[in-house]
Amino acid sequence: MAADQHVVAVDVGGTSIKAALVDRDLRAVETLREPTRRTGEVADVGQIAELVNRLGAGHDVVGAGVAVPGVVDDELGLVRTAVNLGWHDVPLRAELEAATSVPLLVRHDVRTGGLAEFTVGAGKGAPDAMFMPVGTGIAAAVQVDGSVLGASGYAGEIGHLIVDPGGATCGCGARGCLETLAAAPAFARRYAERTGRTITDAAGVAGLLSTDPDARAVWRDAVDALATALQAAVTLFGPSIIVIGGGVAEAGEALIAPLREELLNRLQFQRKPEVVRAALGQDAGRVGAALLGWQAAKS
Amino acid sequence: MAADQHVVAVDVGGTSIKAALVDRDLRAVETLREPTRRTGEVADVGQIAELVNRLGAGHDVVGAGVAVPGVVDDELGLVRTAVNLGWHDVPLRAELEAATSVPLLVRHDVRTGGLAEFTVGAGKGAPDAMFMPVGTGIAAAVQVDGSVLGASGYAGEIGHLIVDPGGATCGCGARGCLETLAAAPAFARRYAERTGRTITDAAGVAGLLSTDPDARAVWRDAVDALATALQAAVTLFGPSIIVIGGGVAEAGEALIAPLREELLNRLQFQRKPEVVRAALGQDAGRVGAALLGWQAAKS
Repeated sequence: MAADQHVVAVDVGGTSIKAALVDRDLRAVETLREPTRRTGEVADVGQIAELVNRLGAGHDVVGAGVAVPGVVDDELGLVRTAVNLGWHDVPLRAELEAATSVPLLVRHDVRTGGLAEFTVGAGKGAPDAMFMPVGTGIAAAVQVDGSVLGASGYAGEIGHLIVDPGGATCGCGARGCLETLAAAPAFARRYAERTGRTITDAAGVAGLLSTDPDARAVWRDAVDALATALQAAVTLFGPSIIVIGGGVAEAGEALIAPLREELLNRLQFQRKPEVVRAALGQDAGRVGAALLGWQAAKS
Repeated sequence: MAADQHVVAVDVGGTSIKAALVDRDLRAVETLREPTRRTGEVADVGQIAELVNRLGAGHDVVGAGVAVPGVVDDELGLVRTAVNLGWHDVPLRAELEAATSVPLLVRHDVRTGGLAEFTVGAGKGAPDAMFMPVGTGIAAAVQVDGSVLGASGYAGEIGHLIVDPGGATCGCGARGCLETLAAAPAFARRYAERTGRTITDAAGVAGLLSTDPDARAVWRDAVDALATALQAAVTLFGPSIIVIGGGVAEAGEALIAPLREELLNRLQFQRKPEVVRAALGQDAGRVGAALLGWQAAKS
């Protein structure tokens, strides 16, 4: 391909949509960010097409990649359910290709971030790797034998492993899911329940770790819950490296170090994985979408 | 290939080795079974080569497949550890190809059985499927996007998911693994602990289900433990079908029906899988090894 070819990478969220024109070295030449446009509850597919067309104007755009939250069939490019976009059975790939005339791939946002971390990030070069962003929700992308699993859209829901049977009720209806103890909102909620004091978020709890035993207890419960879930995932998948991302991982070694120690202590015969922080941070979705764009261009 | 070509399928166990000459329709034309030959604790690789050569004599043998228990790197054909064969880092594929001059593939026994069930057995046609033999141990083979996972040898250890934290100590060193409640030996052990009465095996417990509340309690605990482990596996893998095999599944619907009900009751947003009994029974390893033999012949 010619050196001046580009792809468009789009990371679709419930609050905003981030898009970028990306060159062959995965550099963002131009970026755009807009609030997600809606008709009632339903996010507007046309906005994504407009972003692709606007960024591509005047450039040789040979492909595009789009990362979407929810239950996504990557192979069909079909969004089965995306609660915070109001989408059900949206044939996103077909609609966007029709509206942009650009070859395009659609993928679940966590698997897109995983693709980026496994290809150019913290999991680079590991055939068996796992990427777990810990944010508003918790999910995992798993690469086994060099392929990211779960194109049918149903795999990787590690946030809904039961780690505390009989515990708090999760949004999914079950009790004691990992998300009830370790997703970002759980930190502030559990700290408030424990102390009666309000705190804004997980970073707020992290900031109190050196001085406040209640913050330490909330943090410890989250680390133990994450270790319980990862122990199960390691037993079933056997990754050589686990990459932790998402907003809660912004705490860095305050999260990674005790989680690594607790997980490794629990493993017996299982392969002992490296546990590391994600390398790409908030850019994982965009970088992964750009990689998809180059895949779409080739196919 | 010519219609008279054959492959040799070998299923290596700690007690005996089963081998067969198999035609293109996966029919066993001739079978052999021998006690596993050992030097001290170490099983003799030469016996496997002899079986391949003996069955192949006078036939056009174009490939062979060998199923082995333990931690097996399928891609390298390397047995990392097989406790009940006394093997550590045995380059089985290379040694057998040198001794037989037949193209050959080596695979973990459960993944070999899974390959058979996913290709011609109860999971036929399902791109996302799971095979879980419940016998002396419990492990799983998982197919995602049409490929059986875990060629590096570390995946699928569902028997060592913790389903009863603080429960009985497992052979692996952890407490409360699935195997402590639901592997074949656990049925007789738990029945004896509960009643002081000796019973030979899981089939013995199954035979008492209609008359003996203690047998029912032991059975129920095993079903609940299996459901807990499968709930986690479904959340992480999202299979559309779960195929239950191994000796304990010989109980048929006495196991499958309550397990199916308990698992489906626990799932929330997850894809609801079919839960069925394996179709190939004790032949799964041999059929899978034959499929590997035909793969080796093609490659």
